[in-house]
Amino acid sequence: MKRYSDIREECCAANKSLPSSGLVDLTFGNVSLCDRQAGVFAIKPSGVDYTALTPDDMVIVDFDGKVVEGSLNPSSDTPTHRRLFLAFPDIRSVVHTHSRKAVAFAQAAREIPLLGTTHADYFRGPIPLTRALTPEEINSAYEWETGNIIVERFANLNPNDIPAVLVRNHGPFAWGPSTAKAVENALALEIVADMAFHALTLAPNAVSPALALTEKHFLRKHGSSATYGQKQS
Amino acid sequence: MKRYSDIREECCAANKSLPSSGLVDLTFGNVSLCDRQAGVFAIKPSGVDYTALTPDDMVIVDFDGKVVEGSLNPSSDTPTHRRLFLAFPDIRSVVHTHSRKAVAFAQAAREIPLLGTTHADYFRGPIPLTRALTPEEINSAYEWETGNIIVERFANLNPNDIPAVLVRNHGPFAWGPSTAKAVENALALEIVADMAFHALTLAPNAVSPALALTEKHFLRKHGSSATYGQKQS
Amino acid sequence: MKRYSDIREECCAANKSLPSSGLVDLTFGNVSLCDRQAGVFAIKPSGVDYTALTPDDMVIVDFDGKVVEGSLNPSSDTPTHRRLFLAFPDIRSVVHTHSRKAVAFAQAAREIPLLGTTHADYFRGPIPLTRALTPEEINSAYEWETGNIIVERFANLNPNDIPAVLVRNHGPFAWGPSTAKAVENALALEIVADMAFHALTLAPNAVSPALALTEKHFLRKHGSSATYGQKQS
Amino acid sequence: MKRYSDIREECCAANKSLPSSGLVDLTFGNVSLCDRQAGVFAIKPSGVDYTALTPDDMVIVDFDGKVVEGSLNPSSDTPTHRRLFLAFPDIRSVVHTHSRKAVAFAQAAREIPLLGTTHADYFRGPIPLTRALTPEEINSAYEWETGNIIVERFANLNPNDIPAVLVRNHGPFAWGPSTAKAVENALALEIVADMAFHALTLAPNAVSPALALTEKHFLRKHGSSATYGQKQS
Repeated sequence: MKRYSDIREECCAANKSLPSSGLVDLTFGNVSLCDRQAGVFAIKPSGVDYTALTPDDMVIVDFDGKVVEGSLNPSSDTPTHRRLFLAFPDIRSVVHTHSRKAVAFAQAAREIPLLGTTHADYFRGPIPLTRALTPEEINSAYEWETGNIIVERFANLNPNDIPAVLVRNHGPFAWGPSTAKAVENALALEIVADMAFHALTLAPNAVSPALALTEKHFLRKHGSSATYGQKQS
Repeated sequence: MKRYSDIREECCAANKSLPSSGLVDLTFGNVSLCDRQAGVFAIKPSGVDYTALTPDDMVIVDFDGKVVEGSLNPSSDTPTHRRLFLAFPDIRSVVHTHSRKAVAFAQAAREIPLLGTTHADYFRGPIPLTRALTPEEINSAYEWETGNIIVERFANLNPNDIPAVLVRNHGPFAWGPSTAKAVENALALEIVADMAFHALTLAPNAVSPALALTEKHFLRKHGSSATYGQKQS
Repeated sequence: MKRYSDIREECCAANKSLPSSGLVDLTFGNVSLCDRQAGVFAIKPSGVDYTALTPDDMVIVDFDGKVVEGSLNPSSDTPTHRRLFLAFPDIRSVVHTHSRKAVAFAQAAREIPLLGTTHADYFRGPIPLTRALTPEEINSAYEWETGNIIVERFANLNPNDIPAVLVRNHGPFAWGPSTAKAVENALALEIVADMAFHALTLAPNAVSPALALTEKHFLRKHGSSATYGQKQS
Repeated sequence: MKRYSDIREECCAANKSLPSSGLVDLTFGNVSLCDRQAGVFAIKPSGVDYTALTPDDMVIVDFDGKVVEGSLNPSSDTPTHRRLFLAFPDIRSVVHTHSRKAVAFAQAAREIPLLGTTHADYFRGPIPLTRALTPEEINSAYEWETGNIIVERFANLNPNDIPAVLVRNHGPFAWGPSTAKAVENALALEIVADMAFHALTLAPNAVSPALALTEKHFLRKHGSSATYGQKQS
């Protein structure tokens, strides 16, 4: 009997939800979920169709990158997920997709500017863009180095305030305290990218609103003074 | 037993119709409905998923902003809805969404020009854009002040002729004499925004047609000389 | 018992097919079908929801514009349809929609250039754009005059070779020998508009291919030397 | 009883999958599949609706272009498919669609630049664009000549590394070792075209990433050192 059934089940369900979210084409997307006490995370196996996934197919990997349980190869992006779990102590789930508008910004090598309250409801600033990897980094431990340039980009950013990033010429990673929140952040990112694409087409020099407005929206939904939603019982 | 069951039921049904309308992503949208005789309105509770909503979940608020009935927090946008009910005496329902193309215009800080008959069938002029809120307004009663800048923008406009607005860097509000009409106006706004986006991309200097044409279309469907549709029996 | 059941049924079915075609939003669309021997045509009643339509709801109008049978008001666009039936002797069905990309070209006051073989498979040249109506024309018999400017635009064009038009600042009309063909032409028009929109964004100065190519495609599917499809038995 | 039931069935299923793939409008698309040992290929009949297709409807054509079995006319594009089977020895299936964003590039007469890893996962370089056909080529054996300009364009390209092409002012052809792979390549092409359209709108001078990055992605999924997916058992 397989261990880690809790994270297997939540991780499997989150991966299976990706196609209907509109965020993934073909097999371009994966979700991971960690159990920090056990020191492991579950992740989608590589190149397996979402509809066929079962909790037992999830691959369990430890924080040193060793497969602890599972007969299938883990997602090729596993070292990137692992790097983020190590660097960002408050997150429990990472989502990687090739959602189309976010990829368009990544391919255009542009960050997504903070143009309105929809963006500010989720992200406390522009969606940052990583630098390019060097050929040396690409040819050594590519997926781990992809994690490194994300961490490098967040040197002066709080990953809890901006739970997503664009890897240049590649695409988005998003994260959160649960798979539900990480997938919601990945979806919010794509919506925000779509709105920004059309706004920038209408107004190439569009600027961010006052900081007071964006802080108001972010803090209405996040942190100790949040007023949005219902009190947790 | 709960009171105001009429407005609870119509308001709940309208909120539940939002996801399939294509107008809302995640929980970005809410509908309110007032009973002017009773001096109250029903509105969606904050942050609750549309599928789970029941008529009993609707929050009943009076025109002074006091929750009259309901155990859940009302939508954070409640003061904006209340401001509009107070200022526009003919409307009974307000719809707020973050529909994507309308938001794009709001983020681009552009009104939606009146470029054709689809627009003129619903709106007797461009869709107006509010000014930005000042930091002082944002940091005092933000949602109420959002209502104020809408009302200010309509100083010389008739809200029955132009039943929608874009709040700068935020998104659209629409209204009408019933939830069905208010939601239809919100949908027409998004369609008109989509058409205008593509028209302006094809012709950045596109101009409005003759006033005779747009008046013809608006008055075919509205007012005492309307000829569109069937006689009401 | 109602007469003209043949055209009532085909016309009703075609109108009911519009929402699932993706060509119409709200109630922006109607189909008519004529019986040239009987000298009448069937058309959708004004402002009635597609799902509720029955063959008996279709309004029967003669070529002088008189309602021959039906208790509902015919579509407000009825005189435009009638004008086209009178001017174009080979057509039996007219479709009017506000399909979004075709409207975008009409609002941009641009014809749709012939940029490729998809277009040439259906239309033997650019999709023409009418001139603007004068205020006098708008304020007299508006819908009839809309038909007149279409007919005027086709003075040197063959409506069988180019079975669609854009009415400036309004939207498309398409036609054909049956409702199936007219709706197919309306759909092909929207597809062609969508492709042209994106091609012109990528290459604002995109030009038409060689006439030999477009003629090859048009004549592969139309006329006495057509080779596309299966022999009719 | 019909022969070649294996390729009839796979070919029919692949053609029937096209509408739900989002790649085809109306009847703009066809798939072929060859049996190199038998020296024949199966292809969709011309102008037949996808839903009605049965394996017995597939037309069997030999490599000289002669119909070997089948009472229906084969797709008018049959000579193009045949030309590709003759020139590219490793492919077994060809897919032709008029998918919209790929057609937009073809109509804009632009190749699709290699802007990111989604593209590099499938195609080892830009998606090439053919030259225009001459009027003489169009007026002789048009569909065969269409195949010739594709083959000409691949004079210095490997069709196994870049399994798709844009025919200028027409649209895409894709191929692969099976119908599943050929359809997947056609779908990947459309996704890549969509992402590139939006990236180029955001950044008209967007450039390809380092060759090291794109090679890394292509070779992760293709060739003898591929690490993506699961080991074949």
